[in-house]
Amino acid sequence: MRGRMIGFKEIDGGGLLSVPGLRGAAVKAGIKYEDTLDLAVVVADAPRTAAGMFTRNRLPAAPVRLCQDRLFHEPRVRSLVINSGNANAMTGEGGERDARAMAERLEGRCGGPALVLSTGIIGVPLPLDRILSGIDRASAELGPGAGPAIAQAILTTDTRPKSCAFEAAPPAAMERGEPLIVGGVAKGSGMIHPDMATMLAVIATNAELTPEAMDGVMRRAVDRSFHEITVDGDTSTNDSVIVLAGGARMPALGPASPDLERVAEGIALVAERLAEMIVEDGEGASRVMEVVVTGGASVEQARKVARSIACSSLVKTALAGGDPNWGRILAAAANAETPLFADELTLTIAGERVFAEGRPLPVDEAELADRFSRDRVEVVLGLGQGRARARMLTTDLTAEYVAINSEYTT
Amino acid sequence: MRGRMIGFKEIDGGGLLSVPGLRGAAVKAGIKYEDTLDLAVVVADAPRTAAGMFTRNRLPAAPVRLCQDRLFHEPRVRSLVINSGNANAMTGEGGERDARAMAERLEGRCGGPALVLSTGIIGVPLPLDRILSGIDRASAELGPGAGPAIAQAILTTDTRPKSCAFEAAPPAAMERGEPLIVGGVAKGSGMIHPDMATMLAVIATNAELTPEAMDGVMRRAVDRSFHEITVDGDTSTNDSVIVLAGGARMPALGPASPDLERVAEGIALVAERLAEMIVEDGEGASRVMEVVVTGGASVEQARKVARSIACSSLVKTALAGGDPNWGRILAAAANAETPLFADELTLTIAGERVFAEGRPLPVDEAELADRFSRDRVEVVLGLGQGRARARMLTTDLTAEYVAINSEYTT
Repeated sequence: MRGRMIGFKEIDGGGLLSVPGLRGAAVKAGIKYEDTLDLAVVVADAPRTAAGMFTRNRLPAAPVRLCQDRLFHEPRVRSLVINSGNANAMTGEGGERDARAMAERLEGRCGGPALVLSTGIIGVPLPLDRILSGIDRASAELGPGAGPAIAQAILTTDTRPKSCAFEAAPPAAMERGEPLIVGGVAKGSGMIHPDMATMLAVIATNAELTPEAMDGVMRRAVDRSFHEITVDGDTSTNDSVIVLAGGARMPALGPASPDLERVAEGIALVAERLAEMIVEDGEGASRVMEVVVTGGASVEQARKVARSIACSSLVKTALAGGDPNWGRILAAAANAETPLFADELTLTIAGERVFAEGRPLPVDEAELADRFSRDRVEVVLGLGQGRARARMLTTDLTAEYVAINSEYTT
Repeated sequence: MRGRMIGFKEIDGGGLLSVPGLRGAAVKAGIKYEDTLDLAVVVADAPRTAAGMFTRNRLPAAPVRLCQDRLFHEPRVRSLVINSGNANAMTGEGGERDARAMAERLEGRCGGPALVLSTGIIGVPLPLDRILSGIDRASAELGPGAGPAIAQAILTTDTRPKSCAFEAAPPAAMERGEPLIVGGVAKGSGMIHPDMATMLAVIATNAELTPEAMDGVMRRAVDRSFHEITVDGDTSTNDSVIVLAGGARMPALGPASPDLERVAEGIALVAERLAEMIVEDGEGASRVMEVVVTGGASVEQARKVARSIACSSLVKTALAGGDPNWGRILAAAANAETPLFADELTLTIAGERVFAEGRPLPVDEAELADRFSRDRVEVVLGLGQGRARARMLTTDLTAEYVAINSEYTT
């Protein structure tokens, strides 16, 4: 959270639907399993300013392409449908038609413009009839209390729903009596990696922003949240973050508005909280490692090194075993494609300095192993080259991760 | 093996010491464990022309730097000491001194120039006294039959030794009566990845080559062997491949010699066989996947895509489960930083075409799952962009991999 919560208060049990003007519903459409919530609809009382960031995978799924295309032409959204159980990826032109059919059905029932988000198995055509009938049923049940059901319906291998909402005093531009509210919902949980994974997140605020302001606010929020987490180094075909803004009676805040900062902080706060929830619930994860790289010659360098550590299978298995094998951390850092100088490096794990001036320092090994076995372990590597910093959250690589992923389709 | 064995015959039970003029010994130096072979010495009857390729990790271990420095100044080697149990990496100036002390002790006992190779735990100072006394003992026991003991002594988490040797009719330049022989020894088995890992390999031939010829021959052999394998995507601080040539009575073959090709093929053959042994014995591996990418616009592109597939945790866990979840293979391919076009892709797994013209093809899923569960699974992805090819061998990611790596130091 990095201490930037000033002025924001968490709404107990809050989520995406804590934002005024949003309603939703979740249903059991029978997409992959019977008797499981797997389709959610979210509808605003009027179109909202919208922005999206999507996977950098070179073969994005049909719903991703639909969202990109629609937001490019008009950055406004009124309704969203999200399904789990099937990603509608690698499904050819039929998949594109299916995604359009979902958007059109939702627009017919709830108004548009509509977006479509899908997550689940790749390479299997959608069961379109069941999905359209699910959209029909969900559209008939819209309400303000569906947040928890929506958070449940979008999960795949996640073990728990991920929602949060914060409120703060309104910026000066907002009409008095209404607080500033930001809420969101997300799902992980494998293929979590910078540039986004099979991760879906929807965040909304009641503040009005111009499309230009939205874009900068969203990038900043994603940069210090979803781009700072990794579970297994894989990015997926379907990763999407959607941000909606509006509803309050106020002039839209532009990039130069003094009120924008508070809204931007709120959106970043929700994004960070959701990202933390995703990494804590990473597939098979039993503990979280926070990798901080300081003293980089550039942010790009610091980020490369942090990612190299956070993605190393050998670091992640050592973390699983609570084994403070810090040599692997330095070896992983040195796999990043950037120059490092052993004599300048300082490594601190779980609060204990273990390496400086080119050599290992004496440590109490039992104490170190104990600290390295806690739920959250911090690793700080100083590069000694400059002042740039980067941070990554990662999980341990456990036998449970293997078990979860070795039998997904079958 | 790719059918290039023409003229070469495997020497049953052969290894590095099958090459005339080489002797060796292995001893229990007590580096990490009592009562385990952990130090090996190899000595030639006279200095040999030598070349080396080393890790691209930015913090190479002290022995790697010693080898690089010595080979840069003089490409000749008479003796080698290899220890397991301790990598002498991240050990500062003390580590550099220790590596030099090992080389000097070996030169004093057996003649030089000497090289030093180390593998094992990172960040722990070498037990130098025990190692020097091990060098003394090994030097007193040199013999031609120590090949199996040497192959054993250099292992870390490998489950079996890796040695091979081949012979062929001598090239015209060689004196009659002596066959051309190439032999080698290697160890894996985690941190196996292109650009080399914690892998050590020593290959020798009795043919004489010039230093210029050696360099090209070694690069070609490494390119189609050790650079085509991955176990966990990590490269280590200690990876080294050393090639020695000479001993036969003949003029040294230069880069333009018509006889060079046969020797180069022999060295590549040994390198390929050792690389296959390494990947088959990858940490926790239960099966091997051969990833072939065809139709690349360039070799670089094909290699990027092949590596992206071969390194994906999601592909490797699906392989562990015998789960033909081919969508993950396409998603991993599309994580490579190169343009792909869904409509041009063709994917064949275990002999079954599953994707073409931008969409999934109907398959017999039970039959496919059965084929995907064999010891070795071939995946062929056509990019439809050109004629370049690349190939990678990878292992499955199993719960055993996690178990092996989660408690290595403790």
